[in-house]
Amino acid sequence: MTQTANPTSSGSHRRGATDPSTGAGLDLQEAARRHLWMHFTRLGAYRDHEIPVIVRGEGPYVYDQHGKRYLDGLAGLFTSQLGHGRRELAEAAATQMETLAYFPIWSYAHPRSIELAERIAELTPGDCNRVFFTTGGSEAVESAWKLARQYFKVTGQPLRTKVISREVAYHGTTMGALSVTGVTDIKSVFEPLVPGAVKVPNTNFYRATQHADDIEAFGRYVADRIEEAILAEGPETVAAVYLEPVQNSGGCFTPPPGYFARVREICDRYGVLLVSDEVICGFGRLGHYFGAQRYEFQPDMITVAKGLTSGYAPLGALIAREHLVEPFLEGTRSFLHGITFAGHPVSCAVGLRNLQIFEDEGICEHVRENEASFRQVLEDLRGLPIVGDVRGAGYFYGIELVKDKTTKETFDDEESERLLRGILSPSLYDAGLICRADDRGDPVVQLSPPLICGPEHFKEIGEILRHVLSEAWKQI
Amino acid sequence: MTQTANPTSSGSHRRGATDPSTGAGLDLQEAARRHLWMHFTRLGAYRDHEIPVIVRGEGPYVYDQHGKRYLDGLAGLFTSQLGHGRRELAEAAATQMETLAYFPIWSYAHPRSIELAERIAELTPGDCNRVFFTTGGSEAVESAWKLARQYFKVTGQPLRTKVISREVAYHGTTMGALSVTGVTDIKSVFEPLVPGAVKVPNTNFYRATQHADDIEAFGRYVADRIEEAILAEGPETVAAVYLEPVQNSGGCFTPPPGYFARVREICDRYGVLLVSDEVICGFGRLGHYFGAQRYEFQPDMITVAKGLTSGYAPLGALIAREHLVEPFLEGTRSFLHGITFAGHPVSCAVGLRNLQIFEDEGICEHVRENEASFRQVLEDLRGLPIVGDVRGAGYFYGIELVKDKTTKETFDDEESERLLRGILSPSLYDAGLICRADDRGDPVVQLSPPLICGPEHFKEIGEILRHVLSEAWKQI
Ligand SMILES: Cc1ncc(COP(=O)(O)O)c(C=O)c1O
Ligand SMILES: Cc1ncc(COP(=O)(O)O)c(C=O)c1O
Repeated sequence: MTQTANPTSSGSHRRGATDPSTGAGLDLQEAARRHLWMHFTRLGAYRDHEIPVIVRGEGPYVYDQHGKRYLDGLAGLFTSQLGHGRRELAEAAATQMETLAYFPIWSYAHPRSIELAERIAELTPGDCNRVFFTTGGSEAVESAWKLARQYFKVTGQPLRTKVISREVAYHGTTMGALSVTGVTDIKSVFEPLVPGAVKVPNTNFYRATQHADDIEAFGRYVADRIEEAILAEGPETVAAVYLEPVQNSGGCFTPPPGYFARVREICDRYGVLLVSDEVICGFGRLGHYFGAQRYEFQPDMITVAKGLTSGYAPLGALIAREHLVEPFLEGTRSFLHGITFAGHPVSCAVGLRNLQIFEDEGICEHVRENEASFRQVLEDLRGLPIVGDVRGAGYFYGIELVKDKTTKETFDDEESERLLRGILSPSLYDAGLICRADDRGDPVVQLSPPLICGPEHFKEIGEILRHVLSEAWKQI
Repeated sequence: MTQTANPTSSGSHRRGATDPSTGAGLDLQEAARRHLWMHFTRLGAYRDHEIPVIVRGEGPYVYDQHGKRYLDGLAGLFTSQLGHGRRELAEAAATQMETLAYFPIWSYAHPRSIELAERIAELTPGDCNRVFFTTGGSEAVESAWKLARQYFKVTGQPLRTKVISREVAYHGTTMGALSVTGVTDIKSVFEPLVPGAVKVPNTNFYRATQHADDIEAFGRYVADRIEEAILAEGPETVAAVYLEPVQNSGGCFTPPPGYFARVREICDRYGVLLVSDEVICGFGRLGHYFGAQRYEFQPDMITVAKGLTSGYAPLGALIAREHLVEPFLEGTRSFLHGITFAGHPVSCAVGLRNLQIFEDEGICEHVRENEASFRQVLEDLRGLPIVGDVRGAGYFYGIELVKDKTTKETFDDEESERLLRGILSPSLYDAGLICRADDRGDPVVQLSPPLICGPEHFKEIGEILRHVLSEAWKQI
């Protein structure tokens, strides 16, 4: 993936500065170069540049090995809803770890898994009451596909094995989830993948080629592409449609008004399950526990991870409506699926405490109250010549960068490479802002700050972005 | 899967006994029935039977909601190497969680991920020096397959996409890992899966149909089936072979003498990568950090999870030899793969502390010193009419149950169902021993106690097994 927060030219620091307080006498740079295979990372970029080592965090800020502070504008990786350094969560983890660190939920249960399942069920829309835990998002997406396949097999529709998702959408990287993912560049070298994963257009209205002047008509148009795909594949072969409430990859594509209502209708018409992939959008990111609540639709399954624990411990879940568990409640049948560390007692304890803090501190309300101020700061950047579009919802925004505002002309591959990886990523990092400059679709800068942020942090984000984007425009 | 530690008839306790000290006033039984979708579990079995809720652990013992004690003869799920309730691990977790609970290793690093990668590299055989973290075993298996595919693509052998693994072997449940898995019963409802996963015979010598009187000849024979599969598929299309040092599923199939040397030779001959799946066998289970060390072979990749943290936090890894990272060290290329919670700072801190305890307390040495005593206790059960075979190594054993010792006649499906789920699972649980009674292959009872166990625990295991297996023989 063209994950490009690579701050490859924060090049003032070169190899070698060991920090004994964190590195236990080890030369962290050397050791990292020799042994740590970072994810979605160009290792070559660190041959003569320092690897940024993040050593501690406090609220919305993190600090690197030199003590330099950064505003964590991506909340880790869309995960750190409550920010860093929350002692209550560490205490919940430690207590659970001493009491019962691990036991599987394979035909046993442990108290925290039960309590968290119940708590999640209270928060979900409608009868999404059945919680199948995982350790992360890809596994949740895999679990939903597997459940859909087995469910239809045992209810007499064995041909329903295919899934539909959207172009450029990211749904994870294990081979099943990767098949659902619509980012071609991170898939092709791994082919052949799981058969039966079909793609439809996303809701990129900024680059709409049809109904570009009427967002509702555009929404109907793209929703109808799902119906078209179902019909083309044969409705009797389609198991599920995966959609994020706001599509992350490509840069925060929001749903046009009426989109989800129409998709729900289409799914009902053809007996297809609707999966809301809320690995990013869940747990306050859009000002609600679930994005489906903001956009008022009823999913058949919801996939979550990241924010469920504010990232303090690995946990994910597939949450399913009651009718999906019914064939599994009788006799000797079981959903033939399991993951060792899923519903880990410590992760569940942390998840419970996290959701308690959400309630006590009114995190969702806080986001709803402050999202307009966040949006305003970003909208103000529209004045810059490089800013083509600003879109998103809640605390989740993308800024699309263009070569020409009037024509919406985008940068070619080489320019985009230079702009994102050569200029923006290092300058943003040097300026003390962690965010994502990405070109899985067209070039965007993405922001997803911790949900505890308020106007003062937005101001800081706005100022850094204004400065860095203006400079970048001069250099490109 | 026919996971059958289902203690469905510990039926003296029925619904409702809320334990406020653990359930915060919630009726845990009711809540679990309504919301917790347990893994590989027949939910129907709990309609009128209590769900066993494990609430705390101490050393090799765990306690249920009624305060009843069990010897954890499966170490959770082959994970709890150091047993339960280790305060040092809870402290390591809490400290890390307050300092930096989460940051991605996507083009950044954090100290604990670097330190743990270095520590793992020190322990691995040969130049298995490159650590790609995951959150668990399935993801490690997926990562190895993805790396093999991309590696061969970028080094000019783009057709090498297939993998070979063994019948009845379990390698995980995400769709890629599930394709590698050889347990047909947990795969068929999820077809179609990832193409190109071929199966060969395992090393089940007890039921050998060829060379049943000569284990070395049998070893050559089954190793040569791998060569045969490579040739049948076309060597230029085969990327990797996945083997566990001791195959768990089917009941602890050990490698015949010479097996791994021959497999290594075959892989070298055809340019195929050898993956040692050590999700169970790693970290002391066989008395060494890696099973490959016990059986003296050099894998190209090692997959680990479970024992790396003694289960105290979710973590896994793919560990690769140096030549596999080389094409990714130059220019702009990257391994196009990543997982949000992989290499989680808290999990890495726990992993580090765990490995420190391994060293300080000589855990591998302890296993090597005591494994003969464990084996003896189990071998002594051979006297029972139901015990057909006892096999395994280290602290990892399977006991195969038969209807007739002389003919090795096994139980039919119905008998096996009654024996394992109707009689053994509940009686073992009632008798205070947690282990696995399983029939993914032929019926076996499996044991994998915490590595801190010694002769007194083996004695306890032996006594319970002798009693329960004798009673079962009378009832069947
Ligand atoms: C929408 C969505 N689904 C699934 C995933 C995969 O989650 P994970 O990385 O935890 O496997 C992600 C990760 O970013 C995601 O954004
Ligand atoms: C050998 C082996 N590989 C892979 C896995 C999958 O690991 P996980 O359940 O952590 O995904 C397992 C799980 O038991 C295993 O035993």
